[in-house]
Amino acid sequence: MPKISIKGNSMPESPIRKLVPYAEDAKKRGINVYHLNIGQPDIKTPSVALKSVINNDLNIVAYARSEGSEEYREKLVNYYSSKNIDITPSDIVVTTGGSEALLFTIGSITDYGDEIIIPEPFYANYNGFSTANGVTVKPVISTIENGFALPDISEFEKQISSKTKAIIICNPGNPTGYLYTKEEIEKLAKLALKHDLFLIADEVYREFVYDGLTHHSVMNEKGLENHAILIDSVSKRYSMCGARIGCVVSKNKELIATVLKYAQARLSPPTFALIASEAALDTPQSYFDDVIEEYVARRDTLINELTKIENIKVSKPKGAFYLIAELPIDNADDFAQWMLEDFNHNNETIMVAPASGFYSTKGSGKNQIRIAYVLNKESLIKAVEILKIALEAYKNR
Amino acid sequence: MPKISIKGNSMPESPIRKLVPYAEDAKKRGINVYHLNIGQPDIKTPSVALKSVINNDLNIVAYARSEGSEEYREKLVNYYSSKNIDITPSDIVVTTGGSEALLFTIGSITDYGDEIIIPEPFYANYNGFSTANGVTVKPVISTIENGFALPDISEFEKQISSKTKAIIICNPGNPTGYLYTKEEIEKLAKLALKHDLFLIADEVYREFVYDGLTHHSVMNEKGLENHAILIDSVSKRYSMCGARIGCVVSKNKELIATVLKYAQARLSPPTFALIASEAALDTPQSYFDDVIEEYVARRDTLINELTKIENIKVSKPKGAFYLIAELPIDNADDFAQWMLEDFNHNNETIMVAPASGFYSTKGSGKNQIRIAYVLNKESLIKAVEILKIALEAYKNR
Repeated sequence: MPKISIKGNSMPESPIRKLVPYAEDAKKRGINVYHLNIGQPDIKTPSVALKSVINNDLNIVAYARSEGSEEYREKLVNYYSSKNIDITPSDIVVTTGGSEALLFTIGSITDYGDEIIIPEPFYANYNGFSTANGVTVKPVISTIENGFALPDISEFEKQISSKTKAIIICNPGNPTGYLYTKEEIEKLAKLALKHDLFLIADEVYREFVYDGLTHHSVMNEKGLENHAILIDSVSKRYSMCGARIGCVVSKNKELIATVLKYAQARLSPPTFALIASEAALDTPQSYFDDVIEEYVARRDTLINELTKIENIKVSKPKGAFYLIAELPIDNADDFAQWMLEDFNHNNETIMVAPASGFYSTKGSGKNQIRIAYVLNKESLIKAVEILKIALEAYKNR
Repeated sequence: MPKISIKGNSMPESPIRKLVPYAEDAKKRGINVYHLNIGQPDIKTPSVALKSVINNDLNIVAYARSEGSEEYREKLVNYYSSKNIDITPSDIVVTTGGSEALLFTIGSITDYGDEIIIPEPFYANYNGFSTANGVTVKPVISTIENGFALPDISEFEKQISSKTKAIIICNPGNPTGYLYTKEEIEKLAKLALKHDLFLIADEVYREFVYDGLTHHSVMNEKGLENHAILIDSVSKRYSMCGARIGCVVSKNKELIATVLKYAQARLSPPTFALIASEAALDTPQSYFDDVIEEYVARRDTLINELTKIENIKVSKPKGAFYLIAELPIDNADDFAQWMLEDFNHNNETIMVAPASGFYSTKGSGKNQIRIAYVLNKESLIKAVEILKIALEAYKNR
């Protein structure tokens, strides 16, 4: 039998996926499962986007331009301009989701055996896209005690080698909800310039910033034009995760030309989703105001409830819709599976993401979970109540 | 400035794309350009597929399952069963087009420096997907004199090394239109088994087979279950190139499990396109009958007109909607560009794909072009008339 490659075997399994069969089994047993495990918001997609697809008059679902149409990229330029990001259409390659944007970007800048530095905990699929490109992730640990703030720059420098090609950050962060300050972005920019590294910022949660804080993009950094790469997506911004439209943005012409070669090889981003994404740019500000109000209320409710649990540590997120909680247990992987497999409270249970999957340092985050606050307040209150009872029952099992 | 990787720099540029600016310039000068250069059919998408998208009632454009929904994969199983391909839903991973199916498949079975053997001329992007995975393509030349039939198996054996992981064929072929016989597929199967290689067949043109011939899939080969990988797509079958839905099909469980890890890293295929693709499976046979009748008429018209040109060699395609023609010139790249840049006949010209881009052996196919017969008969007659006049004018320029 022909062999799967070393690289293929090394591709990480999704840390959340492992629990899916247990959740499906629980449902088959008639148990209601509260899903706090995934970043699939329950927020409605803007009607202007939905309507554009319903009203499409295509006779032939033809290829779109590999880099996205001129019209769409021009509208994107206006959107970014409203965020004080000053670019032109030729600085953009439209991709099939932020996922493809990352896969093609990492492919463009790395060879086999190269390294990328990422503050952890980090979005698990950064590891997948790196492995797919034969690249090793070098983590720099951020801690719940510091609210997952940027680790000291000296920690990054310890990980830099001749093989280091880039630093990736997620801002605001999945899974931490941490929003980097202007000063932190400046420190990273200085580091990238000093060692001539790309600074890749996944800013797909840009719209979801709370408490009157401001998002600071890597694209705003003066002098960083050739080093800064912005990864973006419509998935979270417009609650259109299934559309699969994202983009790579950079002032570095060589980078954009290389990403474009990858984009041309796969011909076209998905046409129907492009229609929706272009229309979504006309979403009124009131939509975002409502969504942000809702997320802030959920976050506050969630934290308020969680902090009632004894010996829990919670990091208050300033953006996105995730938080990390440290539980008074040893093994959150086991606990999360147990809640689905062996526990229920009045025929209800919860599904969370064990945080170990967001760390690449073995043994890290073993007592942490990620909670996505993508359910309404009532459900969140209920879910935390179940978590509290589950923790007691788990201790006494 | 940080460096683009060796791999990124090696990514091939699309051989057709190079001519696009010249075509755009010609149009700006008021010249009508007949596009024989791309595989974007002018055939309408089945109305059942278009309507399904218009009638969608999504409120949230949510992630789909990474491998495609159970329902869609079950319907695909029925479709394949009607083609005498016997599989189960778990043998399928739904992908974002045939492109992603190829990218993930090659990624799953190769490490840096590995090799894949492909009969040339071949679909240019096989080279891109290989390069993206750090893999070298080893070509085996097929010739216009033999109608691009399978080269002798000894030619394949000459290219096999310890780094060889797979053979890729396109059946029926882009750019040749060649349909492999049952005997040829059997020979390749034997070779794959002998050397324990994967046999990857891109069968996206399966429906387009002419002259009463039968398509023979690698999935039909007894004993090849662990070696055969089928790449498929809705793009050509339903004239939905922009939908971006394809799939990997294999009975090899390890392969499917590895492709699934790639699929999970990118989360989801595009949701709207999945709706269209699932509905498209209900396209009536009459749609295909009409399309095939049209393509056969076009092919026959095209060949009839082309053979009126002196010293031209044409290979009669048995499937797909391309053919390779050998012209009485030295440099088809130069000629194709010249037709757009310096030539017109009554303010009309044609755009063709120089075939050199479909060969990886340097210097091969330099006097050949690929013609896609994706225009109606009247346009094809007109286009060949222009080609004939252009060849004369080019000779005398």
